[in-house]
Amino acid sequence: MAEQRQMHLGLIVMGAGNHVAGWRMPDAEFGSENFALLRRIAESAEKAKLDLLFFADAVNTGLNAHPGMMLRLEPLTLLSALATCTRRIGLAATVSTTYTEPYNLARMLASLDHISQGRAGWNVVTGSSPDAAPNFSREKHPPHAERYAMAAEYLSVMKGLWDSWEDDALRGDKANGTYVDPNKMHVLNHEGPFYKVKGPLNITRPPQGYPVIFQAGASEAGRDLAAATAEVVFTVQQDLEEAVAFRTDLRRRAVLAGRNEDAIKVMPGVCPVIGDTLAEAKARITELAELADPVAAMKVLSDRMGQDLSNFPLDGPVPELPPSDMMQGHAVTLAAVARRSRMTLRELRDFTAASSGHRVICGTAEMIADDLQIWFDSGAADGFIIQSTHYPAPMDVFLSSVVPILVQRGLFRAEYKGTTLRDHLRLERPDHPAAI
Amino acid sequence: MAEQRQMHLGLIVMGAGNHVAGWRMPDAEFGSENFALLRRIAESAEKAKLDLLFFADAVNTGLNAHPGMMLRLEPLTLLSALATCTRRIGLAATVSTTYTEPYNLARMLASLDHISQGRAGWNVVTGSSPDAAPNFSREKHPPHAERYAMAAEYLSVMKGLWDSWEDDALRGDKANGTYVDPNKMHVLNHEGPFYKVKGPLNITRPPQGYPVIFQAGASEAGRDLAAATAEVVFTVQQDLEEAVAFRTDLRRRAVLAGRNEDAIKVMPGVCPVIGDTLAEAKARITELAELADPVAAMKVLSDRMGQDLSNFPLDGPVPELPPSDMMQGHAVTLAAVARRSRMTLRELRDFTAASSGHRVICGTAEMIADDLQIWFDSGAADGFIIQSTHYPAPMDVFLSSVVPILVQRGLFRAEYKGTTLRDHLRLERPDHPAAI
Repeated sequence: MAEQRQMHLGLIVMGAGNHVAGWRMPDAEFGSENFALLRRIAESAEKAKLDLLFFADAVNTGLNAHPGMMLRLEPLTLLSALATCTRRIGLAATVSTTYTEPYNLARMLASLDHISQGRAGWNVVTGSSPDAAPNFSREKHPPHAERYAMAAEYLSVMKGLWDSWEDDALRGDKANGTYVDPNKMHVLNHEGPFYKVKGPLNITRPPQGYPVIFQAGASEAGRDLAAATAEVVFTVQQDLEEAVAFRTDLRRRAVLAGRNEDAIKVMPGVCPVIGDTLAEAKARITELAELADPVAAMKVLSDRMGQDLSNFPLDGPVPELPPSDMMQGHAVTLAAVARRSRMTLRELRDFTAASSGHRVICGTAEMIADDLQIWFDSGAADGFIIQSTHYPAPMDVFLSSVVPILVQRGLFRAEYKGTTLRDHLRLERPDHPAAI
Repeated sequence: MAEQRQMHLGLIVMGAGNHVAGWRMPDAEFGSENFALLRRIAESAEKAKLDLLFFADAVNTGLNAHPGMMLRLEPLTLLSALATCTRRIGLAATVSTTYTEPYNLARMLASLDHISQGRAGWNVVTGSSPDAAPNFSREKHPPHAERYAMAAEYLSVMKGLWDSWEDDALRGDKANGTYVDPNKMHVLNHEGPFYKVKGPLNITRPPQGYPVIFQAGASEAGRDLAAATAEVVFTVQQDLEEAVAFRTDLRRRAVLAGRNEDAIKVMPGVCPVIGDTLAEAKARITELAELADPVAAMKVLSDRMGQDLSNFPLDGPVPELPPSDMMQGHAVTLAAVARRSRMTLRELRDFTAASSGHRVICGTAEMIADDLQIWFDSGAADGFIIQSTHYPAPMDVFLSSVVPILVQRGLFRAEYKGTTLRDHLRLERPDHPAAI
């Protein structure tokens, strides 16, 4: 009998709450710099056997934005700290390829993978905010196409650096005095249009070969890069049919790129809002909307759309704007939602405030489990990246009510089987090129 | 009655053992990537109430070098992981200013300081190996003078970024919806010869204000930068009189730079080799010397001297070489030791293999305590950075035999009094400029 296909669940943690007003809820503990809270979140998610924790990131701040996007712990230090408080759950974070040297990042991710014994994941982004460049002695953020060309080269440099040493290079043979086997070392000598990196890396190959590669781009360039290189695609999907089409398209592109279609896992973001009744859940989202700071909410929307919308009439239609150089895929999805539902700008703003544009599902635990199952069974998703409007209560409710239903239906694991993030996601460990 | 002046003790951890052959000892556990071992080391050092752990670093590797310098965990991820396994001990590491963007590094160190609740330290180095540049798309390592000018500007950018938010900027006022107080934010807008960094940093001010600033440079440029900005100077000193002169000079320069002379702590490196008798200790260092790989030992010496010495006759005198652009202070100290003791090149090589040029003290626990006390009482040191030829046994012996003698003599703490690294080192927490 074939084993039942199971879904993957990640938790995207924003310590201030994913809803722009989450932190203001009476039962909210908050703070994207509150390590004690983040640690408890990680422990709870692991207890429920989730595949992974996911931390978004940016290398700039701004006033009047989502609180969790203004101030936060840096993700690689944070994940390393969480690695010692947990034993199994995967640990993934966004790091931009535009503002970090590949040698430094390859080391840090390898180090995290060693410290966590094979649980690191890296969400490759090219950096979407033009506000970052002036923090890095640069005049301008590079344009979209160039950022993607840089990212593709960057990724190949990273893999080359991770392959600096074959898996069994470290010998530690006391009798012979052989610490490493020099024949198992490979000097990269990369010279490309954007990077010149000699290598080798000063750390052995990560336990997972490479950390699991995540991507979130949905533009044409983003899809192509994902099809060629991503193992998990974190995506904004509001419509079941469109989500099925998106996943089908990505799997098709992966095959065209010479990969197995199951080597790429599509995980849309979802924000469940759970009540004992549907009415109670809806009341909760209304309560949150009423607490939202309209300026911060508009900043979240503007960032997502890639252009400032604060000067358009709130009760008019969502303005038709030319495609932005930032966040093309995300902007297209949001614009489609607004068009389909004939939203005013105010409505779209409040909609985006809840979950940065990801799908919000209100209902009882059973209704939410049904919804996730429908998406999963329809081929719209290999799993979901779960948001929590705030912490810890709504997350605890999801973990203790929805997850057990999914387990009971055989849709989610009751226990971890493997130890690495690749094990959880059923992704193959990449062989070292010398072993192929 | 005035409180007795007490010494500070740090442990410089190299998982492969500080002696080039340490890992080969029968009782050695080893591996600079062996997190389980590093964690046990940290826990032992904390149990003995040491001030801090210190990790050296470099952004390149090479074959035939000290094993601990070839392959290692990246220090900021490592320290963040150790932060959750310990509660009091300080956590310091080397990070080069030449190959990391200040915005990224300021974030990570601030993040580490938050996660560890005020225990971060940063050893500011300009990067001493020319082998690093080709890992970072650069043709050449910048020359010594330029590296120091860059480092001085870099450090002021770092402090400016750490001051992006006043200490009480994070309000989290649920009732009013005020997450941060916008009047407590300061935009840096730095524009200097080497860096343009706008800010603000996307993390609140570190618990310590700034992480504790370490430096190790001993050249003229290094001393001036240290006098102006360093709080701990980690130094190579072989001779008591020279060490007194060095510390006196640094304290004088600190006063000239407008600082209190006690705001700078001078901590020479020391490698104790302990036996029940002096003869037993000496036998131990001989055993280690016999296990040393001569090629690796010569590489350590060449790196320290800043030039390749492998082609000179081993039994001839140490060659007189022009001053190098790398490691000027360190090279001068080693050359002086060789001259004073009329060492052959082979002898200097074996000497440097033990401790990278730091002072080795052989003896009983009592003898070692006496030696440290003499240096401390003579004004040669505010404390010491202790090495261990290998792990864990020699370190455990030091912690369980020498430290209790120092405690008994009132020279070292029996319990931590404060919680932060600044508390341990009796360094003032820097006020935010807006509060001065």
